[in-house]
Formats: sequence, structure tokens, C-alpha cells
Amino acid sequence: MAVRNPRMKKLETNYLFPEINLRKHDFLSRNPHAQLISLGIGDTTEPIPPYITQALTDGASRLGTRAGYTGYGSEQGLPALRKIITEQFYPNRINHDEVFISDGTKCDLGRLQALFGSDVSIAVQNPTYPVYVDGSLIHGVSNIVYMPSNPENNFFPDLEKIPRTDLIYFCSPNNPTGAAATKNQLEKLIAFAKTNHSVIIYDAAYANYIKDPLLPKSIYEIEGAREVAIELGSFSKMAGFTGVRLGWSVVPDELTYDDGFPIRKDWGRVHSTIFNGASNIAQAGGCAVLEEEGLKEIAVLIEYYLENAKILRSTMEELGYEIYGGINAPFLWVRFSGKSSWHSFQDFLDKYHIITTPGLGFGVEGEHFLRLAAFSHRENILLAVKRLRPIR
Amino acid sequence: MAVRNPRMKKLETNYLFPEINLRKHDFLSRNPHAQLISLGIGDTTEPIPPYITQALTDGASRLGTRAGYTGYGSEQGLPALRKIITEQFYPNRINHDEVFISDGTKCDLGRLQALFGSDVSIAVQNPTYPVYVDGSLIHGVSNIVYMPSNPENNFFPDLEKIPRTDLIYFCSPNNPTGAAATKNQLEKLIAFAKTNHSVIIYDAAYANYIKDPLLPKSIYEIEGAREVAIELGSFSKMAGFTGVRLGWSVVPDELTYDDGFPIRKDWGRVHSTIFNGASNIAQAGGCAVLEEEGLKEIAVLIEYYLENAKILRSTMEELGYEIYGGINAPFLWVRFSGKSSWHSFQDFLDKYHIITTPGLGFGVEGEHFLRLAAFSHRENILLAVKRLRPIR
Repeated sequence: MAVRNPRMKKLETNYLFPEINLRKHDFLSRNPHAQLISLGIGDTTEPIPPYITQALTDGASRLGTRAGYTGYGSEQGLPALRKIITEQFYPNRINHDEVFISDGTKCDLGRLQALFGSDVSIAVQNPTYPVYVDGSLIHGVSNIVYMPSNPENNFFPDLEKIPRTDLIYFCSPNNPTGAAATKNQLEKLIAFAKTNHSVIIYDAAYANYIKDPLLPKSIYEIEGAREVAIELGSFSKMAGFTGVRLGWSVVPDELTYDDGFPIRKDWGRVHSTIFNGASNIAQAGGCAVLEEEGLKEIAVLIEYYLENAKILRSTMEELGYEIYGGINAPFLWVRFSGKSSWHSFQDFLDKYHIITTPGLGFGVEGEHFLRLAAFSHRENILLAVKRLRPIR
Repeated sequence: MAVRNPRMKKLETNYLFPEINLRKHDFLSRNPHAQLISLGIGDTTEPIPPYITQALTDGASRLGTRAGYTGYGSEQGLPALRKIITEQFYPNRINHDEVFISDGTKCDLGRLQALFGSDVSIAVQNPTYPVYVDGSLIHGVSNIVYMPSNPENNFFPDLEKIPRTDLIYFCSPNNPTGAAATKNQLEKLIAFAKTNHSVIIYDAAYANYIKDPLLPKSIYEIEGAREVAIELGSFSKMAGFTGVRLGWSVVPDELTYDDGFPIRKDWGRVHSTIFNGASNIAQAGGCAVLEEEGLKEIAVLIEYYLENAKILRSTMEELGYEIYGGINAPFLWVRFSGKSSWHSFQDFLDKYHIITTPGLGFGVEGEHFLRLAAFSHRENILLAVKRLRPIR
């Protein structure tokens, strides 16, 4: 038979969520009546707000009429959606034909990695969203540089210690640390990329959780970004679209290979060849998200999750935990010095019946941390903080 | 800047649909009042039937309620959908955990090619759906064997002349030729794959157009297929889901690499790493397609397009064209001996104001052919055949 792709073998060590599940089931077999609270996986739980839901149902409904039926759309996305994303997030900075609609950031990452091929070198933050690395491994990338990001460097890599790579993955607000990069940090990152002729893949899937007006919500707010950065956006955490599947990428015209060929053209070609556009129903919903009524609705939704994060954060601070994130991001990053992250995970499970994510799952720099996601229903968050308080 | 991936350069020669568009616009500038009929791109035009549309709207609607809201689903698909696909298409042949839900065949092909990596050799029919080759090129595959399939060999390759490859792409009913493989042909294909230790990637996106009860609708109807074949299925042409985006792949347990490792396990891992599941709304619709009421509706829909094909075919036969396909497939493959396919394309455009697809776009074996798709509204088909008849 065919030889197994050696790249696939490199992936086998990822056992984070299966291991969490094993431990959860083991716990439940010992404690069959326990009511577990999940602050683990970063998945939304609140319903999609009414105006947006209506647009989704209308989008579906139209397909049942001869006048409203549409088949294949452009692989690069509905022009109206590309336009409204541009107006909403990148006014005067990005042109609508530099925006490509997708079925979500994870899928976009897979295709971007196909675009750049196996010979590129990449840099990722450590800790980091595992897909940057795993997706690159699937595509045969072997040259991977890790950029430690921890409380000691304000979760921003010491760039003078980082070797040059072709691509730099950077996520802000960060999953898992909840750190949102400052203007100054992004200026440094762009200067670094320019010096090294690197392309930044800027994952802004949580950008709408930034409340601090001084923090940039898009890398294109920084001068020079158009020449070095691809940005990824997502409707998942912004509008509860994790299951609906909708996201986008931005590839500015100025971004070229060393021979001057625009990356945007190849990206369009990749979209047309191994992708066939996001669902037309999801895209109809996406347009509504960015209309006036939809924007009001998602502001409430995001505020809800941020309030969850605030409740968790303030209680845990009060209780003496060492906490990061959870202010301009839906994730809290909690340090347990001297204790392995699996140990802390097991503690939270056994003592408080709370599922978290062990930091080690995001890289060695996460070894003494837990990630807590704030996407639960409010009553679960309130119950969680109640459990965390010592019994008086 | 980053060096351009040399694989992307190999793709530049594909200019089929852009060239068709150029010629169309040129024609319209010369004939601004012409009413063009498209028998070109294979895209559905009839609305989604009511029971299925209702399931799509219900699927969207539920997301607006707290009880009905769902976020991330399994990357491998909704268990209910995997089950109903198994029962409907592969009873007693395939297990539901061997079925993986996707956002369509084109996207599945992209991920399959990532799974197998760049070092594999592949064989494709000629003519063929261009994505098998273009998608492989993106993933760095350079060893490509073409298997001529033409009227002289009943559109089935002379396997004794074909060298061994790791993968064999085979599409039946075929796009573009409309040929549906017989049981005997598939037995030969499977024996060939077994002898050569090859994996067949069997694209059955048009399987529901097979009306002849003697023709297999799935490769798993043939003994031994579980050990050598992956099958791809699609809701696109079956239920008008080209824009909704829903398909599936089947990877049987017996399919292993040379070291005995099951390909299914790696496929699950690829799904989890660079894909995040098909839209939950699309999946709700997919379940309804395969329920009793939905099956009745799609039978009518498919019959409609097959009747279109029959009208085109019978008229053109009567007029003396040399026609293939269009019986168990929505495509007609028309030979114009001694005339280039672009020449025939231009003839149809200029004389009849009909857009077709030049066969050369599917490979050199298509040079003397046009592909005609039967997915138009009936009135367009009737108008098309009227135009084809000589004025008396």
C-alpha cells in the first residue's frame, strides 16, 4: 500500500483534548453525581441574537424559492460580505478585494499553510494555539522557531533573540494567554518582519473582545502592516458562529514574494482550487452581524462573556491567584508556580469539579499555567467562583 | 520576502473559466441584446425542495434559542448525519464511524491531498475534473500519470498500459464525460489497485444520477473495495446544495498504509487539525435530505435535471451530433472530430448563443469535445434545443 506520509507521524504526540476527556471520564466514574463546570474548550454557549438568527433563517428560506436560489458563489466570498467587513473593520486601510471569506480561521490556516508549502520556516509564540504548528507539520514544515511569551516579557517575545523565519504566527488577543498586544509591541513586530523579510500571519479571531481604546484591534492600524501582514478574522467568538462556520482573511496587495509576485493572487487561486466558498447561509448571517442592528446585538454578547471573565478574574485575584488575561480577551491564564499544569488541572477537577485546559497543551511555556475560558453561561461562572472560595 | 512556493507557479496555466468569461464578454460587447443560455458550469439552478428547506431554516432558527444552540460540533460531523448516510448509501457495507462529513468534495480533495503529502504518485483519468491535478500540484505532487478515457475504450482506461501509482483518482458518473462505470469495470479497477497496492479515490459526487439498476452507485458494492478505496459523496448536485456546502468521505478501516497503520485514523486527525466541521445548519439540512420525505423530493429534482439531459441528448442525436453521457449523469460529452474544442465553443456561442465548456479544459483527451451541463431551468433547455435545430 501507499507509504504513510512521514509528516502525519509527527502529529501523534498531540493528546491534549483526548487526555482531558479520559481524565474527565475517570473522574465521573468515581463521582457519578458530580456536576462538572467546563471552563475548558473555548466554545460559545449563548444563543445567536435574534436579528442575526433571522438573517440566517432568511438565508436558508430564500434557497427554497426560484427567485432567491443561489448555487456556487465566488470562492472568495459574497461581494456584499467582503464589502461590509472592509467598511466595519478596515475603513480606508483595506480594499474589499483584499478580503477573502472562509469557513473559519482553522480552515484558513490549513489553506495558508498549503499556499506557502513545506520549505518555509515559521515562528510561533509559546504558548500558542496548537493549529499553527500541527497544521504546518501536516504540510511538511520542519523548521519551527518558538518565541517564549510569558509574564516576564509581558507576553511579547524578545525579538532580538529570535532568528529570522519566513512566516511569523502572532495571535492577539492571545489564545491562550489573553494578552492583547499594544501599539508599540505591534510596531516592533512589524519592524522585525520588515528587517527579516518575513510575513506575519496575524490571528485576530478575538479582536472584538478588546475594550481598551488604546489597543489596536487590527494590525493594519499600524503603519507598514500592509507590506508584511496577513490578518485572520472570525465570526465564531464574535457572534456565536463556532458551529455556523464563517471567517475571513486579509491579504493586502503590497504583500509580495521576493520576486514581486503578489501573494494575494496565489491566495485567490488556492481558494478557487481547494475551497468552494463558505456556506451561503452562513454568509447571509455574516452580513447581518455587521449591520447596525447586528453590531448592537454582538456588543451585548461580547459584553456578557467579558463580564464572565471579569467575575472569574476578580474572584480569583481576591483569592490570591496569579492571573493574566481576561480583560481584553475571553481567556484567563493562571499561574501555579512550581506545579505542573496537569497537576493543577487534576486539582481543579477533583476539588472544584471544574474542567480547565492545562497550559502544557499550548507549549512548554504553559507548563505552570491553566487556561480558563469565559464562554459558559453566567450561572456556571457564578457557581464556579462559589466553589473556588474556601468554605467558611 | 518569502520565496514564492514553486508549486504555485505550476498552476498558472489553468485559464479555462477566465478564458470562457473573456470570450463571453467579448461576445456580449458585439451582441449586447443576445440572450445567452449557459450549459457551461455544472451548477444547480432549481430551488431546494420544501421539506429540506424547512430543515435548513429550522437548523438556523434553533441557534437562536438557548435550548437549541450548538457551538463547535465534531470535526468529523454530526453523528446523526454520519449514521443516516451510512444507512442510505452503504447498508451493511460501511460503518458510520468510517464516514466523515465535510463542506464538499473540492474541499475534501484538498485535505486528502494534504494527508498523502507531496511524495505520492497519482493517476487521473483524461479528461478529468481539474481539481485532482491542480490540488495535487498545490500540495507539491509532481508524479502524475494520465489515463486516456475516450469513446474508443468506453471511457475506461486501458489499465494494462498504466504504470503503478500510489493514488488513483476515478470519477463515476464522470465529470466531464458523463460515463458511469460498470460493475465489471470497477472490478478491474479494484483488482488493478490491489495488484499495485494503490489507493483509489473514488469521486461519486454524481452517484444519485445513476438510473440504470445494473450500474453500481458506490464502489463498495464491489467486493474488495473496502481494502483499496476511499469514496467521496456530495449533497451538491443531489439536493441543490452547491452553495450550502455539504459532502462526505468514506475511509474504511481496512484501508492501511504499508506499515498497517489505518488511513482512517490519520484522516480523522487531518479533519481535527485543519478543518472544523461543516456548518451545523447545512448538516441539519443534510439529515432531512436523507429522510423519507427528503428522498422523495430529491428524486424529483434529479429526475428534472435528467429529463433536461434527455431532451438535449435526443435532439442532438437526431441532428446528427456524436454524443456521450447524459443518461446516468447530468453531463453530455459531444464530439466534434477534427475541430478544436475552443473552435466548437466559439461556434456554439456565435451561432446559438449557448455557453458550453471546451473539452480541452479537462485535459488533452477533451480536445475534440464540448461538455454540456443539464442543470439549467427547463425553459432554457427547450430554448437551447430550438436554437440548435436548423431554421427550416
